[in-house]
Amino acid sequence: MKLEKIIKNACEESISESRTGDTEDEINFIQNYLKSARKIIVPSKNAVKLNIINNVLKEFGLQEAEQLCINTSAADLNRLPALSKAIMALDQCECDLIISRGRLGVPGSGSMLVMIDKKGRILTAATSPSHVVHKKEVKDAVRGEIVHALERIGLKRIK
Amino acid sequence: MKLEKIIKNACEESISESRTGDTEDEINFIQNYLKSARKIIVPSKNAVKLNIINNVLKEFGLQEAEQLCINTSAADLNRLPALSKAIMALDQCECDLIISRGRLGVPGSGSMLVMIDKKGRILTAATSPSHVVHKKEVKDAVRGEIVHALERIGLKRIK
Amino acid sequence: MKLEKIIKNACEESISESRTGDTEDEINFIQNYLKSARKIIVPSKNAVKLNIINNVLKEFGLQEAEQLCINTSAADLNRLPALSKAIMALDQCECDLIISRGRLGVPGSGSMLVMIDKKGRILTAATSPSHVVHKKEVKDAVRGEIVHALERIGLKRIK
Amino acid sequence: MKLEKIIKNACEESISESRTGDTEDEINFIQNYLKSARKIIVPSKNAVKLNIINNVLKEFGLQEAEQLCINTSAADLNRLPALSKAIMALDQCECDLIISRGRLGVPGSGSMLVMIDKKGRILTAATSPSHVVHKKEVKDAVRGEIVHALERIGLKRIK
Repeated sequence: MKLEKIIKNACEESISESRTGDTEDEINFIQNYLKSARKIIVPSKNAVKLNIINNVLKEFGLQEAEQLCINTSAADLNRLPALSKAIMALDQCECDLIISRGRLGVPGSGSMLVMIDKKGRILTAATSPSHVVHKKEVKDAVRGEIVHALERIGLKRIK
Repeated sequence: MKLEKIIKNACEESISESRTGDTEDEINFIQNYLKSARKIIVPSKNAVKLNIINNVLKEFGLQEAEQLCINTSAADLNRLPALSKAIMALDQCECDLIISRGRLGVPGSGSMLVMIDKKGRILTAATSPSHVVHKKEVKDAVRGEIVHALERIGLKRIK
Repeated sequence: MKLEKIIKNACEESISESRTGDTEDEINFIQNYLKSARKIIVPSKNAVKLNIINNVLKEFGLQEAEQLCINTSAADLNRLPALSKAIMALDQCECDLIISRGRLGVPGSGSMLVMIDKKGRILTAATSPSHVVHKKEVKDAVRGEIVHALERIGLKRIK
Repeated sequence: MKLEKIIKNACEESISESRTGDTEDEINFIQNYLKSARKIIVPSKNAVKLNIINNVLKEFGLQEAEQLCINTSAADLNRLPALSKAIMALDQCECDLIISRGRLGVPGSGSMLVMIDKKGRILTAATSPSHVVHKKEVKDAVRGEIVHALERIGLKRIK
């Protein structure tokens, strides 16, 4: 079933107030979308973050991502920097999946890693506190976010 | 300092590519905004969820939230249901803070609890997998989200 | 040239503050996108409005649109009802172009007709005052909006 | 009546499918909001455009706008540059009304002038074709947009 059909059904359930939460089929669709994604893009000039993301993608048996070097600091002027960065990348390149990391909201709100499909729809996301709060290394925060973003939709490591 | 000034400074840092992540002052501002919020709104017809949220708010020494009974299922037809629900509530009532819980993105993407200020800016958020994945009771998921949303900006329990 | 490349170039011009407005090539791209659109969708339960839109599309030598009967009143709860309706339709069906008409902003702000591409990007739009202000028949307002939306990107009648 | 109450009523009408378009009261509210706006902001580094806007505001008996010199080219990287610029300005300054002019959508889609209130809600807007299509001077296009944006919500010149 296509995501359009899944969304149409879910919308009708919501409007008729008969929806009882996400279903196994909906989660499986997202898992399969990620597994079948051939062109994955990470909009970032930071090769270290790209490597961390790719290591995790490999552990989960997913396609490695390509770096997209576009101006991303402009995204920080928006209310949802991480998501704005993802949409900016989607508008500037053709791909199956975009993995974007940036600030969640206002300055001080910590970070978010978000995965969107080829139409800009959000498949999964994970947040981290600011470095000032979690005291972790950035690489550990990035790794934690992408592992969580994949595990929360039921994907598992294969390596 | 006002949030407008904090955002203006952060934008200038981003544009000049001199920004090095969230600062202590930015996080303190968010904490103080939450502590000083007098009118907190939860857009939901579900009194159980409201109680769970209020119990946690009390544990963190924050003002209890009021229920706003507006039609929220319409928010599910949008790409960011939880955030759309928050903005819908903001447009229909005057308040300091909105705490909104709903689906993160597409059907299957799990839930998000988001807190926005009186202008609709995102202060913090937390996500949970779908019930199908985490198998937890909804009340535990809601409790986990709001505790995480508060702790990730450095707030601590006082009770 | 693909729209992704056009947008990438325009973004780089904007960031380097060297952009001097829309170019002929950019406008030609939009014209050709509309002329080559094979599946055009109008999210509306109102067959009269669909006919008016299709009459104008025929006059401009464009493909006729198909009706998409989804729940659209939920879009009115958002800040940009016309655009929200378009994105809702995009999420529920595969197509080349969506032509969506609805309220512009808050109640009283009149209407907007907007055309988005298969990724949800805005190609053109036109606004009308509220009926209370323009006193025109709805069909004349709809006709005026779509003619203006097409002419403002340089398209001309061929019949 | 407050705009929150007006929006709440309109949402209920939309959900119950009993809404029959904008009402006189809704339009009057927007007119009075503009007439009572004391702090009006135009996010632009272009003093010529500010003067044109202020001349028209004076003709309509409205408060003159103040210039806000923030980085606005970053807004062009978003899907709705004119509206993104308005929200960026709203996030960086306290005011009653923001008048923002920028590109409507993708490169080639012409311009839009939009007015948002202190919460970021759209009160009115007007579009213009690209200069390549309308061949007008920029100052005439700006003047045409703001006159149309005011007249379409029923405001009239008083000078």
